[in-house]
Amino acid sequence: MAQLDALRNEVCQANRNLAKHGLAALTWGNASGINADRTRVVIKPSGVEYDALTPTDMVVVDPDGRVVEGKLRPSSDTPTHLALYRAFVSIGGVVHVHSPHATAFAQARRPISCFGTTHADLFNGPVPVTRALTAEEVAGAYEANTGCVIVECFEQRDPDAFPGVLVAGHGPFVWGASVTEALRNAVALETIAGMALETLALDEQTRPLEPYLLDKHHQRKHGTGAYYGQK
Amino acid sequence: MAQLDALRNEVCQANRNLAKHGLAALTWGNASGINADRTRVVIKPSGVEYDALTPTDMVVVDPDGRVVEGKLRPSSDTPTHLALYRAFVSIGGVVHVHSPHATAFAQARRPISCFGTTHADLFNGPVPVTRALTAEEVAGAYEANTGCVIVECFEQRDPDAFPGVLVAGHGPFVWGASVTEALRNAVALETIAGMALETLALDEQTRPLEPYLLDKHHQRKHGTGAYYGQK
Amino acid sequence: MAQLDALRNEVCQANRNLAKHGLAALTWGNASGINADRTRVVIKPSGVEYDALTPTDMVVVDPDGRVVEGKLRPSSDTPTHLALYRAFVSIGGVVHVHSPHATAFAQARRPISCFGTTHADLFNGPVPVTRALTAEEVAGAYEANTGCVIVECFEQRDPDAFPGVLVAGHGPFVWGASVTEALRNAVALETIAGMALETLALDEQTRPLEPYLLDKHHQRKHGTGAYYGQK
Amino acid sequence: MAQLDALRNEVCQANRNLAKHGLAALTWGNASGINADRTRVVIKPSGVEYDALTPTDMVVVDPDGRVVEGKLRPSSDTPTHLALYRAFVSIGGVVHVHSPHATAFAQARRPISCFGTTHADLFNGPVPVTRALTAEEVAGAYEANTGCVIVECFEQRDPDAFPGVLVAGHGPFVWGASVTEALRNAVALETIAGMALETLALDEQTRPLEPYLLDKHHQRKHGTGAYYGQK
Repeated sequence: MAQLDALRNEVCQANRNLAKHGLAALTWGNASGINADRTRVVIKPSGVEYDALTPTDMVVVDPDGRVVEGKLRPSSDTPTHLALYRAFVSIGGVVHVHSPHATAFAQARRPISCFGTTHADLFNGPVPVTRALTAEEVAGAYEANTGCVIVECFEQRDPDAFPGVLVAGHGPFVWGASVTEALRNAVALETIAGMALETLALDEQTRPLEPYLLDKHHQRKHGTGAYYGQK
Repeated sequence: MAQLDALRNEVCQANRNLAKHGLAALTWGNASGINADRTRVVIKPSGVEYDALTPTDMVVVDPDGRVVEGKLRPSSDTPTHLALYRAFVSIGGVVHVHSPHATAFAQARRPISCFGTTHADLFNGPVPVTRALTAEEVAGAYEANTGCVIVECFEQRDPDAFPGVLVAGHGPFVWGASVTEALRNAVALETIAGMALETLALDEQTRPLEPYLLDKHHQRKHGTGAYYGQK
Repeated sequence: MAQLDALRNEVCQANRNLAKHGLAALTWGNASGINADRTRVVIKPSGVEYDALTPTDMVVVDPDGRVVEGKLRPSSDTPTHLALYRAFVSIGGVVHVHSPHATAFAQARRPISCFGTTHADLFNGPVPVTRALTAEEVAGAYEANTGCVIVECFEQRDPDAFPGVLVAGHGPFVWGASVTEALRNAVALETIAGMALETLALDEQTRPLEPYLLDKHHQRKHGTGAYYGQK
Repeated sequence: MAQLDALRNEVCQANRNLAKHGLAALTWGNASGINADRTRVVIKPSGVEYDALTPTDMVVVDPDGRVVEGKLRPSSDTPTHLALYRAFVSIGGVVHVHSPHATAFAQARRPISCFGTTHADLFNGPVPVTRALTAEEVAGAYEANTGCVIVECFEQRDPDAFPGVLVAGHGPFVWGASVTEALRNAVALETIAGMALETLALDEQTRPLEPYLLDKHHQRKHGTGAYYGQK
């Protein structure tokens, strides 16, 4: 159907742009989108290089991960994407990458403090890090369990105000209203991670942004009275 | 009028070059220029991506920020630009970006010491950092107040000898005789910020450049007996 | 013969891609491949820039390093490549570069700990560093002896589970089932070295990835039940 | 004359390549070459952007710095170049840049230790830093005096074994048998400076390369029995 074709194009373009934005070397990253009635998820095929991707290579799965359309195997991270779509009902796209700066924070298992307005425009506070998966969780349905620890990390957080997370020892998962917005958020997260690294190099004791300024920047872009961008 | 058309072209080109020079990811940066009689400011529309910008997208505002020409909303940072044009009567262009190295210093709220002649060619001493805005300033006319704290920071400084500033917890604002020169100064500021970061990594106690060498380099480029460049 | 022509093309392309991937400045890197019956090695000519390389420039040597085809001198590192093909019978390609992040670890003579799943996908543990060559080894058959210290370092390691090594004070040698895979592994090694540098900058005491997660990632990509990529 | 035309082309190309190799932002760098009988030096005009440079823009000066051909003013650093040609009779080209990593060492006034074979291929020991110029030297013939402190730094060093230097608080000057080789050496110096920065970040106490390995690498490329590259 036409709606799914449009999604296939958008998801394909977002995957190709992972490489273009320097977020993913080789085949290390994947983007997906969900259709409006949340019955179909379109996702990158596993292990295929970005330059070679065409919309017909995209794999369509149902909410349980069964392949509905497409000849290739879906990304091995598909169960993580599906867990996020199930738990976060407002999101329309998910991006997973191993972008270097964000991954460094994930590997050091250190949340990214909000040091400036660049960060505040995107995240309403520190970028969280999940707990480590247990040996049992890894031995079992590993990729689905990765989704579970992300969801667990958001029990007290709003996924719209925090559009991403660092999985401990792994890397970022990022989301948005669409896969295109998820990609933009992944670019933004990598940029603020790099800035935070350099901020901490200049002063390991740098204090977080004043709460009133954090709030102001987040609200002027995302609040009910938002005035950033075009109407 | 023809003069404004030329300015629109120059401002559009400067905005497009923000992305080309790696100073601005996504839509995070804006450049503006003022006409000769200082009655019109041409500025980037808010939240539009650089690749898509054309001269007719540029927004023309009067000194009070009222839109005079253009169908789009001007950058949300317009009141900051206007405050700078009002206070610094010699400048013809302003660039605001979140370029990573300069932003790291802004986030660490640490002035950039002058460690070498690259810096001395541009700034006649350390790049200053503003004080933080108060909760009241942020709750009120935030963007105009950002301009106020910059102007306050220059009460004892010459904006021609210091063509930029780091707003605490935010990022750099840079200016010049034209928007093209402001862009060049923004490129230069990001470069010297990166060099200063690495200099401090090599030796946190690095001492500033000898004052006589700082002065020499600044004067050979900007003084009355300047001999850098073509006549 | 046709088989050797295909190898010449693949080796030429891999060498040209060293520069494209930012792994080698100037002429600092070389890639080689071995034919199926392990009687011929195709390698880059010494000191020739990447942009100028054509398949006919590639040099064909026998397992003792004698030039069999080609008008140019082979890479001065040829004896190291030959030592690796002799000792590691499963490999089909070798890449040697001075890529900056991996070389920094080689210069600091510090193994790259496995801090995350990006690393675990490639190496089944820390990336090892060889011992330093002795004065006698350097004065003698230096390049062949470089191969010997690498092989010595793998007496207790599986070259398929650890597809590369850092030669102390020198840089990485990387391998794979083909020269194309060796190139991919060299890109991956440089990426994980950069991430490890930043991880250590964030926390010098970062602990290695949980062994069960290291093993899981390595096995899902390389084990008998691997399910990453296409069938 | 034809010989000078060839030099003009080569110097123009080297200057254009400063930007292409990321060694010089804006107009911050210059390359020159000297003719065979050392009567004419061809150098970049001052303050002109690299993209716009054509061979006829190059300025020809005599050994005393008088303009012999060309309509533009020569680089303000011309007297430094001339001092180097006078003192180092084997060199045919000079490159001056403010490339970030090398400039960071110059600003921290810290020699670049030889930590690996990449460095040893180029410099037969640490990259030296000049002493600071005195107030009198800066107030007088500043650019010529910059040449003098470089030459002073080489009283006990061979400029062929050490093809460059860091001027304290300023940046690198690099040379070679031709301007093309000087450019290659400037690329190499920036690369080894970057690697040294990361090596020191990993271990501030990293010890220099074993002298026998330093010597071996330098000799295999530059000694009488050199076997790197083509005959």
